[in-house]
Amino acid sequence: MKVPIVANILKANDSIAQQNHEALRAKKIFAVNIMSSPGAGKTTLIERTINTLKGELKIGVIEGDIQSTHDSEIIAKTGAQVVQINTGGACHLDANMVSKAIEQLDLSSIDILLIENVGNLVCPSNFWLGEDKKVVLTSVPEGDDKPLKYPSIFLVSDAVIINKIDLLPYMTYDIDKVRQECLRIKPEIKIFQLSSKTGERFDEWIEWLKELRKEKLQG
Amino acid sequence: MKVPIVANILKANDSIAQQNHEALRAKKIFAVNIMSSPGAGKTTLIERTINTLKGELKIGVIEGDIQSTHDSEIIAKTGAQVVQINTGGACHLDANMVSKAIEQLDLSSIDILLIENVGNLVCPSNFWLGEDKKVVLTSVPEGDDKPLKYPSIFLVSDAVIINKIDLLPYMTYDIDKVRQECLRIKPEIKIFQLSSKTGERFDEWIEWLKELRKEKLQG
Repeated sequence: MKVPIVANILKANDSIAQQNHEALRAKKIFAVNIMSSPGAGKTTLIERTINTLKGELKIGVIEGDIQSTHDSEIIAKTGAQVVQINTGGACHLDANMVSKAIEQLDLSSIDILLIENVGNLVCPSNFWLGEDKKVVLTSVPEGDDKPLKYPSIFLVSDAVIINKIDLLPYMTYDIDKVRQECLRIKPEIKIFQLSSKTGERFDEWIEWLKELRKEKLQG
Repeated sequence: MKVPIVANILKANDSIAQQNHEALRAKKIFAVNIMSSPGAGKTTLIERTINTLKGELKIGVIEGDIQSTHDSEIIAKTGAQVVQINTGGACHLDANMVSKAIEQLDLSSIDILLIENVGNLVCPSNFWLGEDKKVVLTSVPEGDDKPLKYPSIFLVSDAVIINKIDLLPYMTYDIDKVRQECLRIKPEIKIFQLSSKTGERFDEWIEWLKELRKEKLQG
């Protein structure tokens, strides 16, 4: 009896996700679901993305956490629109939560919506929220075995960001091994290696975001 | 209808966990459930614990992962008995999985059983596996906001290990804030700050393990 229940939940989720997707498309908003382990640097990535694009593109943010408003307070300081979702225990966002959050945003003044999922390398894989693209972060101090050990989340992602490359000098981390393992799991995955803290190679990520948003507007 | 189902699952789990607990007690084995985010350093902690106690206490290890035998291969090199559990997607170990793993171990030659849970800061909190103590690792590069954002796993833990303190010089991390937040969540929690990589302050963790094992044998 267990598998059908899970299947029904996912079906119900996808139906709401489709509604979210259409609501965002109607407003010409490009949406990205950002997933990672706790502490891989999702919030810092979003913060620098907002600041880099300031004056050019308006970013809206949905912050997903088990509890607390810690991350949304950081984002609010940038001046971007932000809504916090507290899942109250759940280890991932779902489309219904995001639907409620979208209602709180002024969509007419958003070009790109960044959705920060709950810090978890397992649970978020199965749940489409209505986004256009999924991005998974993996950070250097987590170790170079993460794609091997948690392949599902890499498989569903359109891009992987290897974050915190400023820490490479202080640890053993085989970045080529990580790249190869990601490509083995999903040959078409886009791979970035950058530091959200120092800004090193951050421009490649920004260009990708801008390019995909343009494609969506033209498509 | 959802909450009762979850409650039944937890009740069934706890009943098997109790059997595991009794099987381990009969063999005078002290068991620890080690939980953390992916990449916080559980495997390195276990590896150094085995090597530090070599010749004094025999360690058995159960390795929990979504898939792969990556971690059990590392542990096997130490010469310790190790069994790998692949959860096939599940974001935590449960008592039934551990029960099956225990059957694969020669319990008569184990003094301490270390159970490495799936890398996840949310899901493992609710599942007792039959262990005597729960330990949560949080590593410096994950950032100093983890107890604030994931309090449940700290609340259920007997000890917290702040790992990778060798990286403190390279990042902003307020260790006093982390300690205070842990104590706010659970005043009686034991806090270690150490580096499993360099061995700095590792002796305090080893002494705690030995002391609690002795207490169990006497109790």
